[in-house]
Amino acid sequence: MKKNLLLTPGPSKVPVELCEVLGQPIIHHRTPQFQQILKDVTEGLRKVIGTSSDVYLLASSGTGAMEAAVANLASQGDKVITVEYGKFGERWASLAKAYKLNYVTLKIEWGRTITPEEVKAALAQHPDAKAIFLTQCETSTSATPDLQAIAAVTRNTSTALVVDAVSALGTEPIQMDAWGVDVVCSGSHKGLMLPPGVGIVAVSAKAIAMIEASTNIRFYFDLRKSRKALADTDTPFTPAINIIIALDAALKMLLTEGLDKKQAYYLKMAQAVWAAAEALGLKVYAQPAYRSRGLTAILIPEALNPKKLVKIMRDVHGITMAGGQGDLDGKIVRIAHMGAVDEYDVLTGISCLEKVLKEAGHKFELGAGLAAAQKVLNS
Amino acid sequence: MKKNLLLTPGPSKVPVELCEVLGQPIIHHRTPQFQQILKDVTEGLRKVIGTSSDVYLLASSGTGAMEAAVANLASQGDKVITVEYGKFGERWASLAKAYKLNYVTLKIEWGRTITPEEVKAALAQHPDAKAIFLTQCETSTSATPDLQAIAAVTRNTSTALVVDAVSALGTEPIQMDAWGVDVVCSGSHKGLMLPPGVGIVAVSAKAIAMIEASTNIRFYFDLRKSRKALADTDTPFTPAINIIIALDAALKMLLTEGLDKKQAYYLKMAQAVWAAAEALGLKVYAQPAYRSRGLTAILIPEALNPKKLVKIMRDVHGITMAGGQGDLDGKIVRIAHMGAVDEYDVLTGISCLEKVLKEAGHKFELGAGLAAAQKVLNS
Repeated sequence: MKKNLLLTPGPSKVPVELCEVLGQPIIHHRTPQFQQILKDVTEGLRKVIGTSSDVYLLASSGTGAMEAAVANLASQGDKVITVEYGKFGERWASLAKAYKLNYVTLKIEWGRTITPEEVKAALAQHPDAKAIFLTQCETSTSATPDLQAIAAVTRNTSTALVVDAVSALGTEPIQMDAWGVDVVCSGSHKGLMLPPGVGIVAVSAKAIAMIEASTNIRFYFDLRKSRKALADTDTPFTPAINIIIALDAALKMLLTEGLDKKQAYYLKMAQAVWAAAEALGLKVYAQPAYRSRGLTAILIPEALNPKKLVKIMRDVHGITMAGGQGDLDGKIVRIAHMGAVDEYDVLTGISCLEKVLKEAGHKFELGAGLAAAQKVLNS
Repeated sequence: MKKNLLLTPGPSKVPVELCEVLGQPIIHHRTPQFQQILKDVTEGLRKVIGTSSDVYLLASSGTGAMEAAVANLASQGDKVITVEYGKFGERWASLAKAYKLNYVTLKIEWGRTITPEEVKAALAQHPDAKAIFLTQCETSTSATPDLQAIAAVTRNTSTALVVDAVSALGTEPIQMDAWGVDVVCSGSHKGLMLPPGVGIVAVSAKAIAMIEASTNIRFYFDLRKSRKALADTDTPFTPAINIIIALDAALKMLLTEGLDKKQAYYLKMAQAVWAAAEALGLKVYAQPAYRSRGLTAILIPEALNPKKLVKIMRDVHGITMAGGQGDLDGKIVRIAHMGAVDEYDVLTGISCLEKVLKEAGHKFELGAGLAAAQKVLNS
């Protein structure tokens, strides 16, 4: 009877209403019934992304959506800029390298992200860059940039702004058209509350022109095929039917509750976790100006063995958070407050963290984290 | 209260036991619990494919698995042979073209497949071909080749035998190691009784050497990454967690019942459908020596408008079969007897087909198809 609560930043908790949809009898994808669902999902995603442009669905995880962006927007030898402020930013460089692009990598110290000024300077130095690839919510550090201000820099240039919003979509605000973002990549298993298996790529008119011009080799991730299929309310290859049907339900849940309201709630849960960390004598890893709404990385003294704490919470108490990746391995605990996670889940997580911290010998007053969080949540 | 029975050759019917697994609360993929499932799924697939070699899981549909084979086995400019005896065979050529391989396409008339002799002749003409790509169950025509005899031709050459077993796996016998097949590509949504979303690629030692040597651009479908991850009981990118968990259950169902027994049952259902077609004065499209166990394409006189019959069965009666694709559009009805489809489902399908054929003015004795099928099923 152990709890099974996912407070990991992807996959994130799937609400029981969506579990039920995932388990419904399958339907065929070449039917009017599924076409209607595809139409509704596309419309729902347009609202969440803030675009009236094309949104493509791939049967893939988020990396597939990122590969589609790299493969379709530039051609071998083209100059692009990749930005790194955590482990997922590194993936853009790995993809650019694999596709033999002429890529320049901006390395920003972890804990913050790139500023609009730094983007401006990079574009001044590399005005021939076809695209700049960055991360909206850097899941490894829980930091997020001022995307609107960055898009204001890129929008009147020939450089396309490509955003990894895999863990941001639904949770962090984005207005693709109004801000001038060119490509938004995402997946089903973070803010959209579902299991992994659907990749999402939204493209601006500027991006579509680049897609048509690219000479890169691509087939499964060829967005020209996706574009053609979308015009017929179809997908180029067999879609991940049951996840897409559940995505329809998930988007309707989010949009019925109201995206603004939901995103204000994620922010409040984030603030509650920050307050709890402080009350427990711990530091939030991301700098205050860069903290995301979707997850919080908390620095844990190495003497307390954060990896072991994560393991005990998961294996003994059934509450799964994430440890650190790359340079942050063994240094942080990450707790997600995205998608279907609610304030009671967050309090459950804080309670469990208090328990294992106390057992590990950390000095604090039991309940201090919970009380601090509760005050923020009810303010 | 309309029936919702899928008799389509992918997605195929998902049994209710697996629907339940698909709807279970999600777990995280970087846990010992999921690692155990990955291990069991790999072992189960090895048994179904008949190999002790590597089996990789991709978060993709079957086409992703096929692209992985093309992208990893040859390099730009390499000579390969693609074989076409239906619409899915054409996909091998499309992939080879996209990857700029020097491909030779053998076009076989639809309704049969390639013979071992034809493979032998092709290899004699193109001994420098890195690989020959063909289809085990050509879903568009319901024809299947003598794969064992073909593998006997290729196994002692330097040409790798790559098989699209997307709709064949689980249903048609295959012994990858014993026969000498080099790559088997498949997916979750046909014989394995699940929704689409998991691609499967099994590779021989000969194929692994080619994968390591390929200079093609690849990232998401880079099987070197899959190989490295498999050694750590992991996947290179976020896997389609809930489908893989259900795949574990599906494989255990298939293997507990016994693969030989199950495949004999598919053959019996196929024979029942052939007998029913004959009793209704209709012809089975695939030539007798090439008929698959997993589905049957039945030729329907164009005057009866087979497309309309499929639509009425689906929209009025809730029983979904497939029409024809490509050159067979408007000429056939395809009924699947793979995966979780049982003899009662097949009889249901025949009954519905009789109903709409009668309404369309086709002359036959009502019940003749059912009776003929019933005799075979109980022989």
